[in-house]
Amino acid sequence: MRIPGKSDILTAEGRIKEYINKTPVLSSRTFNKMFGADFLFKCENFQKTGSFKVRGAINSVFSLSGKDLGNGVATHSSGNHAQALAYAASLKRVEAYTVMPVTAPEIKINAVKGYGGVITFCEPTLDSRKKTLEKVIAETGAVEIHPYDKFEIVSGQATAAKELIEENENIAILLAPVGGGGLLAGTSLAAKYFGKNIKVIGCEPDGADDAYKSFKTGKIIPSVNPQTIADGLLTSLGEINYEIIKENVHDIITVSEESIKAAMKLIWERMKIIIEPSSAVPFAAILEEKIDVKDKNVGIIISGGNVDLNKSYF
Amino acid sequence: MRIPGKSDILTAEGRIKEYINKTPVLSSRTFNKMFGADFLFKCENFQKTGSFKVRGAINSVFSLSGKDLGNGVATHSSGNHAQALAYAASLKRVEAYTVMPVTAPEIKINAVKGYGGVITFCEPTLDSRKKTLEKVIAETGAVEIHPYDKFEIVSGQATAAKELIEENENIAILLAPVGGGGLLAGTSLAAKYFGKNIKVIGCEPDGADDAYKSFKTGKIIPSVNPQTIADGLLTSLGEINYEIIKENVHDIITVSEESIKAAMKLIWERMKIIIEPSSAVPFAAILEEKIDVKDKNVGIIISGGNVDLNKSYF
Repeated sequence: MRIPGKSDILTAEGRIKEYINKTPVLSSRTFNKMFGADFLFKCENFQKTGSFKVRGAINSVFSLSGKDLGNGVATHSSGNHAQALAYAASLKRVEAYTVMPVTAPEIKINAVKGYGGVITFCEPTLDSRKKTLEKVIAETGAVEIHPYDKFEIVSGQATAAKELIEENENIAILLAPVGGGGLLAGTSLAAKYFGKNIKVIGCEPDGADDAYKSFKTGKIIPSVNPQTIADGLLTSLGEINYEIIKENVHDIITVSEESIKAAMKLIWERMKIIIEPSSAVPFAAILEEKIDVKDKNVGIIISGGNVDLNKSYF
Repeated sequence: MRIPGKSDILTAEGRIKEYINKTPVLSSRTFNKMFGADFLFKCENFQKTGSFKVRGAINSVFSLSGKDLGNGVATHSSGNHAQALAYAASLKRVEAYTVMPVTAPEIKINAVKGYGGVITFCEPTLDSRKKTLEKVIAETGAVEIHPYDKFEIVSGQATAAKELIEENENIAILLAPVGGGGLLAGTSLAAKYFGKNIKVIGCEPDGADDAYKSFKTGKIIPSVNPQTIADGLLTSLGEINYEIIKENVHDIITVSEESIKAAMKLIWERMKIIIEPSSAVPFAAILEEKIDVKDKNVGIIISGGNVDLNKSYF
């Protein structure tokens, strides 16, 4: 399996640079005092479309030739990847076809529409999503852009950690949430190519611990009926993601729902920034004291900030 | 009545500089596109203690001699001024006595305690607050630091707008919420001394429109039974504040509760930052299209970010 090299991440960075935000790295004296560490939050909640997903999506779309792109792109994500892909496709003036379950919240539907995405609704089952996507692709000739199990997605997502590492060269520990593994795989490659002895740790909800199980057993264990508030982390680990994570990630840690909510609330309350539940998972691992952070520079990728404010989280 | 001059604001700035955050100025392409303007949000929600109030509080405490400060400082605010004063007093290692109604939410009580403030509870009436404060002052010999009707408070609050103006010298319109008027008065002085032809406009909830009425009638009309989600704007205009506002503010505009909530939600959702309801009042005036912002640089003071996340705002 071909794994992204240093040059692939540099290529991704060059491709996407002018279309994304160089997101800020925030710190918190309160949290530093609480844990005796120096935390560096890479705030992809301030990224275009509200999450890091736009990095991989633009890199994927821009890696295709005009001819291959002519019929547009397609995905069956209903989350942040769908918005990111719709935005990326808009930059190339091609259609983005998104298959979404009829049960998708209005805010997600509107977000995709807001970037000009074309939505096809399906039943809320993985089977229906896949079949509907196949049908859409057969009808339109669009190219499928997988949300994470894809070379260009991983290379694109790696650029978030690259930016963080370049701003703070003493990072010793780097935390990222893990769902399908695009962000974690990319983060671990960026740490290897651009960092100095960084331990990359993946953080996952107890209720969706397929990456943890896969990492510990040495083979991909799919996610079955995952239950977590962290709605960006429900998917199973992809193949390229697993291969990279297996080699380059130091550990995967799981956390309780209570800790995720507590971490999310603390960050909203103290840092005054909106992060989505998935983004709170690494800081939840800090709250559970599962990582020795004392006197260390600890980077945390805040993956996104897309929340439904009509929902009550706390 | 003595009004702060340019030099008083410079003195305030020098006094407080090392104890406060130089808060970021954020923009939003989404909002710029929506209204054809260039918005500049001065984010005092990221300020120490979560609001601009710390500027005036530190300036007031630091303007007192060691002898005058010896018995501590006191206030009957239950909101952001109480936290700010407790923090300011902690810098000088003196007590901050705060009178709070027994009905104050736990989050505010804990915030004041978190900065080492000493709380005395009273009945939830203005009369009880005043009498309890008098008693506390009689017993302790502490100096009262009024939340807004005070020379040093106004000079301190002026520094927020000064920072904003210095970062963006083309600001044509500058909006601030108005409650007691410390922030609005300070903002109008900063605009006059440090800006170029800036129109300063105060923004107030319909349900707490005493500053609007005072401004329009030419005399202070006290706030009677105000009703608004913007809990930082319930107080009546102070005397020094009124004098300054009357001379230096271009207009005062009132907005509905629906607009305040919509503005707050939009800012949370799109900018991914937590702001409190009072901070949303100026942007509510934009949503109500009460200000001609087309093609203009529009500064907005986001006054604070202290919210009770257990409450449902939307």
